[in-house]
Amino acid sequence: MVNYPNMKKNINTTFHKPEQKHYTAHRGMSLEEDISLSNEYYLSASLAVIYKKPTPVQIVKVDYPKREAAKIVEAYYKTPSTTDYNGIYKGRYIDFEAKETKVKTFPFANISKHQIDHLQRIIDHGGIAFVIIAFTSLNEVYLIDASYIIYDYYHASRKSMTYEKIKSLGHIIPQGYQPRLDYLKVIDEVYIKEDK
Amino acid sequence: MVNYPNMKKNINTTFHKPEQKHYTAHRGMSLEEDISLSNEYYLSASLAVIYKKPTPVQIVKVDYPKREAAKIVEAYYKTPSTTDYNGIYKGRYIDFEAKETKVKTFPFANISKHQIDHLQRIIDHGGIAFVIIAFTSLNEVYLIDASYIIYDYYHASRKSMTYEKIKSLGHIIPQGYQPRLDYLKVIDEVYIKEDK
Repeated sequence: MVNYPNMKKNINTTFHKPEQKHYTAHRGMSLEEDISLSNEYYLSASLAVIYKKPTPVQIVKVDYPKREAAKIVEAYYKTPSTTDYNGIYKGRYIDFEAKETKVKTFPFANISKHQIDHLQRIIDHGGIAFVIIAFTSLNEVYLIDASYIIYDYYHASRKSMTYEKIKSLGHIIPQGYQPRLDYLKVIDEVYIKEDK
Repeated sequence: MVNYPNMKKNINTTFHKPEQKHYTAHRGMSLEEDISLSNEYYLSASLAVIYKKPTPVQIVKVDYPKREAAKIVEAYYKTPSTTDYNGIYKGRYIDFEAKETKVKTFPFANISKHQIDHLQRIIDHGGIAFVIIAFTSLNEVYLIDASYIIYDYYHASRKSMTYEKIKSLGHIIPQGYQPRLDYLKVIDEVYIKEDK
């Protein structure tokens, strides 16, 4: 069989972006998909306006074929300097990162120093900042205020946060049909109620 | 001279994305660059946390060369469903779009219905929503509350807003060395002051 030079490319097309792994037996959806569907529901119900930011990409080369859309032919993933999600809910600025973990611990290697510092800035400016962590083996998803993650990131001797600690400091997010992950309910209880 | 088959590609590398045109004699910077530098200054001075969202791109094919970063080899620009900029200032959610125009009018063709509807939602949820419009031939940049743009977009007979109307309803943004475009100063005057 001829080893076509473009064979490698074809094989690679079946790959996905490494970070987009599936997180659970939960209907075969990834955490990212569940949050996106929840955000679409919140938007359509006029409850909140929260979007995932596009993946940052460094575009190097673009072709402009005649009568066709501009085609990006060389680009690279960039390290995000902020979190993946932000928006507005009940007049409050919302900002969060969402992460899956297969093990019963949340390794800080999953979150960048840039993102930690960004979350701290959001708190300093009066926003609501948190991290959503999905434990895929348990099918449990938690919302934990960013301040706890930031503190342990800089002060704890271990480079991770245990499931027990997240369960104790965070709040489990109710899962359902619509929205799939009702994290606004947790925001109401944790952040909005205390303001009143 | 041999007409190399990759010549076309090389020519195309010198092109820029169509929307990233330069806006002014103002130091040869584009509006986008001026806003980005202003945002960097605001961030470093702990005044606000406002970022431009990455350009949304539909990634079709990625190569994973050994010992090198993943290389995106086929991707296309997507139509943004939201605005380019958002963030937090003095606890308030900030959301805006920035546009340049060479003529003494702002054509609504420069802004999509999706973006108009997004700005309306931000207002409905208690955020601060506006459009920054640079008149490149005049070297003047205005901040105008999104409600005026939205109203004319849906109700005015003409499919544009004149310079005179923007000057009358909007507020000129002071230009300087740092920040280059001090739009927070306008926000203070227009949105924050009236809250007190």
